[in-house]
Amino acid sequence: MIETDAVVIGAGPVGLFQAFQLGLQEIPCHIVDALPHPGGQCAELYPHKPIYDIPGLPVTTGQDLTEQLLTQLAPFKVPMHLGHAVEGLHQQADGRWLLTAGQQHFITRTVFVAAGVGAFVPRKPPAVNLDRFEGGQVHYHRVPPEKIQGRQIVVLGGEDAAIETALHCAEWGHCTSVTLVHRTDRFKAEPELLQRLEHQQAQGTVRVVVGQPVGLMASADGLRLEGLQLATTDDTTASLSVEVLLPRLGLAPKLGPIADWGLALERKQLVVNTETFATLQPGVFAVGDINIYPGKRKLILCGFHEATLAAFGAAAYLRPTERVLLQYTTTSPRLHELLGVRH
Amino acid sequence: MIETDAVVIGAGPVGLFQAFQLGLQEIPCHIVDALPHPGGQCAELYPHKPIYDIPGLPVTTGQDLTEQLLTQLAPFKVPMHLGHAVEGLHQQADGRWLLTAGQQHFITRTVFVAAGVGAFVPRKPPAVNLDRFEGGQVHYHRVPPEKIQGRQIVVLGGEDAAIETALHCAEWGHCTSVTLVHRTDRFKAEPELLQRLEHQQAQGTVRVVVGQPVGLMASADGLRLEGLQLATTDDTTASLSVEVLLPRLGLAPKLGPIADWGLALERKQLVVNTETFATLQPGVFAVGDINIYPGKRKLILCGFHEATLAAFGAAAYLRPTERVLLQYTTTSPRLHELLGVRH
Repeated sequence: MIETDAVVIGAGPVGLFQAFQLGLQEIPCHIVDALPHPGGQCAELYPHKPIYDIPGLPVTTGQDLTEQLLTQLAPFKVPMHLGHAVEGLHQQADGRWLLTAGQQHFITRTVFVAAGVGAFVPRKPPAVNLDRFEGGQVHYHRVPPEKIQGRQIVVLGGEDAAIETALHCAEWGHCTSVTLVHRTDRFKAEPELLQRLEHQQAQGTVRVVVGQPVGLMASADGLRLEGLQLATTDDTTASLSVEVLLPRLGLAPKLGPIADWGLALERKQLVVNTETFATLQPGVFAVGDINIYPGKRKLILCGFHEATLAAFGAAAYLRPTERVLLQYTTTSPRLHELLGVRH
Repeated sequence: MIETDAVVIGAGPVGLFQAFQLGLQEIPCHIVDALPHPGGQCAELYPHKPIYDIPGLPVTTGQDLTEQLLTQLAPFKVPMHLGHAVEGLHQQADGRWLLTAGQQHFITRTVFVAAGVGAFVPRKPPAVNLDRFEGGQVHYHRVPPEKIQGRQIVVLGGEDAAIETALHCAEWGHCTSVTLVHRTDRFKAEPELLQRLEHQQAQGTVRVVVGQPVGLMASADGLRLEGLQLATTDDTTASLSVEVLLPRLGLAPKLGPIADWGLALERKQLVVNTETFATLQPGVFAVGDINIYPGKRKLILCGFHEATLAAFGAAAYLRPTERVLLQYTTTSPRLHELLGVRH
């Protein structure tokens, strides 16, 4: 159980900047995210695509912006709990919030929902239930080398992430075999990736199979995944041996339990006021794409503003007897001390 | 007379980003600023001081941020009218606004007041009236070399700008003499500047005189400034020859005529709604430090958000029959075309 003043749900750009602004307000916080790495949908959906409308950055990318925000946040040494989807949020008798995220439990005075369009969870192949093999032979996210070394690898999917994963295994050279399974022979990816895929196919280091998983083969005790049954385009079924399965079918946002937290929702978004970006629940703030208010536009730069006013709102909520002053990072010796810079 | 859809008053960070957002909305605009260069108070008051709270820029300066915003704005080729203080704003019978700024007149459908704490005007020496020599022998802003070459230069002031100006003239080496006049012998500036000043004093290329201007000497016809009378610390008066006078006594913000524009003011700030940052006057928006609303914090990053929603508000105001869609710079082919980038 972790006791803290603030938990930020979501490690996307707005969540990271929320933690930075809490740092400036001297409010200790933790960040929780369902994804195994920071950056949110920005780093997940378009890590390398240019973004042109972040003020002061004529061009950046989801990945670069995330790295810049991590650098900016670094002085505050905020603990991050990645790969933890938040499951529940319940107010305690003393007004604090119990937040559960997998094995991790938090008791916190304030909560900042910066969850974008919900937790990003990998799409699972629809017709087969792989749940019992997850973490063992089935991996939806980046996987450590020892899990794939000397194995027969099957990658599912037809877009950038699937092709990148197959290429990564093939170019690394330490897997027994690499098979890429997609429902058609048309792939949708950057030309450069398609070119590298063709090259690996020609080398025989990646095999492409057209088909859709319709069943699986397991060991007699049901504990080991041994293969997939694929429906092929000519309506026959083929079997494919599998030692490690890497589904890369994209991510789908799930609002998930947020919908059950008793917060006011409007079109699946959290209603906030524009003074502090507080929800109707005391101590719970919502910033970024997850909130709604008159004039709302789902833009990263608007989330930065929302996170800033939410941090001021939280400071007033947590320290009701103090007046929250506006200090400037350019001139405030106290902020310089917090940021670890000398002047 | 310039006819346009939008005029942005203020070329500070928020005014520049306002013009960028208007560009994304395909609303042609002009920028007007009282200062002779873009950047506003940010570039004027702390051009080289680090700023740590611009999201995604772990550290920047007023000058760097201004340059980045100018680069970001460049695709839209927005005309800038610098050195023009806005004097009047009057609504016409057809609902458009007549905006006057020195010799420049605009007829515009929308106005964005991004004027910070008002127009920055140089502080003038209190006891002498130099108005008639302005532009000829008296210069409050950067001055072209031909105006100071071969002249006796007197700089007034005791802070960075005054010392920088005196050093600039002395190190350049083409002025007849350089005298720095300050009311005490204590200067308030970066140590590096003070060191360079000492060095130039030792070389005899800058003379420091302690005193305060209390009168001036002019030619018989009153057209030429010939010298200053200075009250010195021992209560005597001294005369000082002057060919070119460069007062560097700092800048003072003047809300000036904005106060007379008939817009709703609260503590000298323009009242706006937080949906579009519109004032009560149709077509007039206010963004950045000049506006006020519940929760307002005078931070640059908040101004960026305000400018963005104001651009959406203006698009709805200017094109009432169209629905204003949110497009992303990451994915919209139309925005890519406007930004002049290829994908």
